[in-house]
Amino acid sequence: MANKMINFRNDYNSPGHPAVLRAVAECAGVKYPGYGTDAASERARSQIAGLLGPGRCADIHFLAGGTQVNLTALSAFLRPHEAVIAPGSAHIYVHETGAIEATGHKVLTVPPVNGKVRAEDVRAVCKSHTDEHMVKPRLLYISQTTELGTVYTKAELSSLREVCDVCGLLFYIDGARLGYALSSEYCDFELRELAGLADVFYIGGTKNGLLFGEALVICNLKLTSDFRFLVKQHGGLLSKGFLLGIQFTALLEGGLYFDLAKQANDAAAKLTEGLRNKGFSFLTETESNQVFPIVPEDAIKRLEENIHFEVWAGADEKGTPIRFVTTWLTTDEEIEAVLGMIR
Amino acid sequence: MANKMINFRNDYNSPGHPAVLRAVAECAGVKYPGYGTDAASERARSQIAGLLGPGRCADIHFLAGGTQVNLTALSAFLRPHEAVIAPGSAHIYVHETGAIEATGHKVLTVPPVNGKVRAEDVRAVCKSHTDEHMVKPRLLYISQTTELGTVYTKAELSSLREVCDVCGLLFYIDGARLGYALSSEYCDFELRELAGLADVFYIGGTKNGLLFGEALVICNLKLTSDFRFLVKQHGGLLSKGFLLGIQFTALLEGGLYFDLAKQANDAAAKLTEGLRNKGFSFLTETESNQVFPIVPEDAIKRLEENIHFEVWAGADEKGTPIRFVTTWLTTDEEIEAVLGMIR
Amino acid sequence: MANKMINFRNDYNSPGHPAVLRAVAECAGVKYPGYGTDAASERARSQIAGLLGPGRCADIHFLAGGTQVNLTALSAFLRPHEAVIAPGSAHIYVHETGAIEATGHKVLTVPPVNGKVRAEDVRAVCKSHTDEHMVKPRLLYISQTTELGTVYTKAELSSLREVCDVCGLLFYIDGARLGYALSSEYCDFELRELAGLADVFYIGGTKNGLLFGEALVICNLKLTSDFRFLVKQHGGLLSKGFLLGIQFTALLEGGLYFDLAKQANDAAAKLTEGLRNKGFSFLTETESNQVFPIVPEDAIKRLEENIHFEVWAGADEKGTPIRFVTTWLTTDEEIEAVLGMIR
Amino acid sequence: MANKMINFRNDYNSPGHPAVLRAVAECAGVKYPGYGTDAASERARSQIAGLLGPGRCADIHFLAGGTQVNLTALSAFLRPHEAVIAPGSAHIYVHETGAIEATGHKVLTVPPVNGKVRAEDVRAVCKSHTDEHMVKPRLLYISQTTELGTVYTKAELSSLREVCDVCGLLFYIDGARLGYALSSEYCDFELRELAGLADVFYIGGTKNGLLFGEALVICNLKLTSDFRFLVKQHGGLLSKGFLLGIQFTALLEGGLYFDLAKQANDAAAKLTEGLRNKGFSFLTETESNQVFPIVPEDAIKRLEENIHFEVWAGADEKGTPIRFVTTWLTTDEEIEAVLGMIR
Repeated sequence: MANKMINFRNDYNSPGHPAVLRAVAECAGVKYPGYGTDAASERARSQIAGLLGPGRCADIHFLAGGTQVNLTALSAFLRPHEAVIAPGSAHIYVHETGAIEATGHKVLTVPPVNGKVRAEDVRAVCKSHTDEHMVKPRLLYISQTTELGTVYTKAELSSLREVCDVCGLLFYIDGARLGYALSSEYCDFELRELAGLADVFYIGGTKNGLLFGEALVICNLKLTSDFRFLVKQHGGLLSKGFLLGIQFTALLEGGLYFDLAKQANDAAAKLTEGLRNKGFSFLTETESNQVFPIVPEDAIKRLEENIHFEVWAGADEKGTPIRFVTTWLTTDEEIEAVLGMIR
Repeated sequence: MANKMINFRNDYNSPGHPAVLRAVAECAGVKYPGYGTDAASERARSQIAGLLGPGRCADIHFLAGGTQVNLTALSAFLRPHEAVIAPGSAHIYVHETGAIEATGHKVLTVPPVNGKVRAEDVRAVCKSHTDEHMVKPRLLYISQTTELGTVYTKAELSSLREVCDVCGLLFYIDGARLGYALSSEYCDFELRELAGLADVFYIGGTKNGLLFGEALVICNLKLTSDFRFLVKQHGGLLSKGFLLGIQFTALLEGGLYFDLAKQANDAAAKLTEGLRNKGFSFLTETESNQVFPIVPEDAIKRLEENIHFEVWAGADEKGTPIRFVTTWLTTDEEIEAVLGMIR
Repeated sequence: MANKMINFRNDYNSPGHPAVLRAVAECAGVKYPGYGTDAASERARSQIAGLLGPGRCADIHFLAGGTQVNLTALSAFLRPHEAVIAPGSAHIYVHETGAIEATGHKVLTVPPVNGKVRAEDVRAVCKSHTDEHMVKPRLLYISQTTELGTVYTKAELSSLREVCDVCGLLFYIDGARLGYALSSEYCDFELRELAGLADVFYIGGTKNGLLFGEALVICNLKLTSDFRFLVKQHGGLLSKGFLLGIQFTALLEGGLYFDLAKQANDAAAKLTEGLRNKGFSFLTETESNQVFPIVPEDAIKRLEENIHFEVWAGADEKGTPIRFVTTWLTTDEEIEAVLGMIR
Repeated sequence: MANKMINFRNDYNSPGHPAVLRAVAECAGVKYPGYGTDAASERARSQIAGLLGPGRCADIHFLAGGTQVNLTALSAFLRPHEAVIAPGSAHIYVHETGAIEATGHKVLTVPPVNGKVRAEDVRAVCKSHTDEHMVKPRLLYISQTTELGTVYTKAELSSLREVCDVCGLLFYIDGARLGYALSSEYCDFELRELAGLADVFYIGGTKNGLLFGEALVICNLKLTSDFRFLVKQHGGLLSKGFLLGIQFTALLEGGLYFDLAKQANDAAAKLTEGLRNKGFSFLTETESNQVFPIVPEDAIKRLEENIHFEVWAGADEKGTPIRFVTTWLTTDEEIEAVLGMIR
């Protein structure tokens, strides 16, 4: 239809990849044990373990969504007086309705630079927390890719690991868009290297092809004790946990998970290129599947007639930053359509 | 195959009904707004509203699982010092890892009689809580069907409603198996009558054909304010909320939801009849899709070779109560097989 | 004056012992560092350490009240899914407005026998908690004296210690009335032996001569880490912490703390003897400073005209149990007066 | 003695004013009902009510300390998703070990200007919190005097009240040092006017002559329901509540409370004057009992040999800000001594 809207609003706007839907449908007649104790979940855990590299043990749990993962994991690892350090732009700080604080823990912020946390800022927060009248910083939260779609390099992650070691912090990486990060040209490391740096991270499925599902990987084995109790207590232990195993297996098989992310990144790069050619500048470099052009006010109104996207921030003299998000479903036609409409 | 196990362990052991899987697959190419603000969710809400009867307004929310619903709803409605009254066998009391207490609220118990709560016991708990040194009872939690598969009659629910009114309690009905209750021959009322008695209840999907999903119905409009904030804070606001709308619509369409439950109840009745004919007695009457025969110790070992089921309680002189759960997938052959194996 | 009421209602109805008031007054001109880091607090900690016996290290903290101590300590020692086992009559279960649950933890109950917990009941609760769908019992709470004023013997405490070891439980003793217990003729052990059996306990001051103040003794050194953070977070870190040190020192000096308790116990014994001679029976043996005679309904009305006391429970065919609590202030005249009034 | 240290570290370094100690001592023989239900507490409540002006009803509660008051009150008034707005320097944000977050609530900050919150910054925070993915601002917290000892004027408080009305915020004033504020020359209003602007505030006793004790005044009667339950749940319901009533009465009688604060403010003014005459500059104007001179590094070392005070912040090119706090106990000799030592 002519008036069909093009959707660049986010990467969770369609049910899921056909391979995922097919896998679920194929198991329709099978009977499974509950709560993730099934063979499909076991297989998905093995596949992920395989990606972590030889000799690395990890505890792997499947949950339904990112906020659920963050609040369950962070509250599981912290004592009541311990706090999280996160960038001021962090999803847990701004966009999860105080979920971490609702479990009793303060989130201390550092100013993000290009979406990223700097080791020196983490160190400063730790140094300023000196006694029992203040919370005790205990965990560093970052996301990869960042909220701006930028990608930490191995050197950057290593410097954060180092400050965590010095300051006695756990290192947690929110991987809602980890597939996009690992498939980015800006990424100079593999999953197994990430697993060597983080205490805990998760591999996001919802934003990259699954109906729903995130795989939490606890690399630091001191943190694994009784974790399933915490998942259950927060309502995250899906009775049909096998659905998570079935879906992850479908996407991890043959590396489809990374291929889809690569497709989305390529689409974002193409869109960026086209916008740059038209003279637009950007809030930040496009490093994964998010594009942040700065556009004039009147362009926004026009675009909104045909395209779903997000106005990212208020206008300044250069214009208004908006956000386009691509996925494996983004087509060249859609990109051309956007480029045709924008001036 | 000869060694294929028959599964009577629970009602959430298979992915979902074909109509549900089909509905999801058919929407694979569609793009939706997030977080349940889509047309599919809107349609499912309308279908449920239609079941509540004319002139009844209610606030309807879709969530992924029962524990999630219980903890979100109960903690949304209570101030910090307010407590829940529930039967000692309640799912929230025994089987949700202290999820309600984790939100800060005490659960006070009354002894269940045939799985059910009696009004006089509720009144006694309220009377014994007299001042600010004790928690303040504020909400009555029951489940329909009960943990024993029994079904509250309209008179029973009305007497509970009455004690709630007298004691200033909200009345909450956990409907993880509400479909089975409403389709039971022992049930003398319809959904719209339930909606007139409860302040809040939910319609369970996971245990009756959905991949996952529960529909929370807030009938008392004083309780609806800001509810989505609470859902988000507890990690229950599914980004692909449209999946819940699509699924519920598929089952509610044409009453399939109730037909499936009826099928399961019929299977349970047939199994009960067969067992009774063989001379078995029961822990309780079979009123829905759960059957609790009391069997000799040696029968358990033999059954476990071919059948998944649950040992419900310790043995006494009459034998050991076990539990068989039926679903829309239960076949006559499976029932015959059980009857053939048990002596 | 003729119409002055005699007060047997509780053991916290007067400001404090003259020695305590004098000690505070004498320090009026002194300047102290805050938050219990002062020399007076240090001295009180040394005095208590001295009572624990040679070679025992313990972490000692002073707080203002019993509920504050209980909620701070228990929540400091437990992870979110871990639960407390306590008698159904426990102060934390019945009379602290859900303070423990407000910190997120379930309290599981066992039926008290003569006010006391039995090891076999604790074991049964632990055995019935089998997996991640249920909370994990982690701490046994009892009080010494019990809510009925009875006193655990060394053998009883040892059997509870044993079940704690077997079941992986911490052993916590609420000592709001520990002085009365240790000064009781029914007590066959000393404080240093208690310190060898419990992981944590506290020595109650408010109910035995202090203006306010309890001394928490953490014997299990694995539990001491960062404890002051928890105290501060719960609002229990008194800025003028030196007041607690000054008061405890005043009472511990020369064993006055135990002498006062002994006086109260003796008064209770005398009152019991008098009542027994008049033919009254008792809810339980008088083992410390609480007396529970069973009296006829009309006696209550008459007594209430001149005496403050508590009606303990509902009437049965034998009469109504009431409670008299004695303190170091209780006089022979007051006892005689009660005996004169009661028939 | 020659080596006696002079104490300018804080205003809670001595037990209490003689009038307070005397009042407690005089009641040593009296027996009281518990938990603040006594006549002494009632009298203190009446005295405070008298200060609120005619026709103003308020609910008044006595608690033991400021952190206890803050966490109890704020968590009593907020639903789980509601947040507090406070200056980044707020005691609840920096120096209470995450007590507010431990009750589940996020604290959002605005940058303090001269210690004070500006209405426009509050409005901006509210405007940026737009939907259920973010917490909902619901209460504005300030302290009077501020953390820098500055004093809000009536116009400033009125503009904050206005923004609270516009944005649907409750207005809470932490009055740990309210006496100093009301006795300040910089203060252009009286307690009854404050009571007309704030929903809730407290009158701090610990920092101005009491052994311990704060009086919480709930002016907004919609917030009073069941408040004692919350106090008890957080361990703040002192069993010997009468001690708080006795103390407050002693200080409020004849306005001694304000006289003591005035003395301290005068001492601070004198110290400021002396320092200014010696050429020192200040971090901020001295408006109450805190003085913040900026001193050279070597002065600090010398002062520390004889004086207790606090280094307030890191050095910059102008020097290091330090803090002197005065009380009713501060003598001219002590001020002269400081002035003699500092260069």
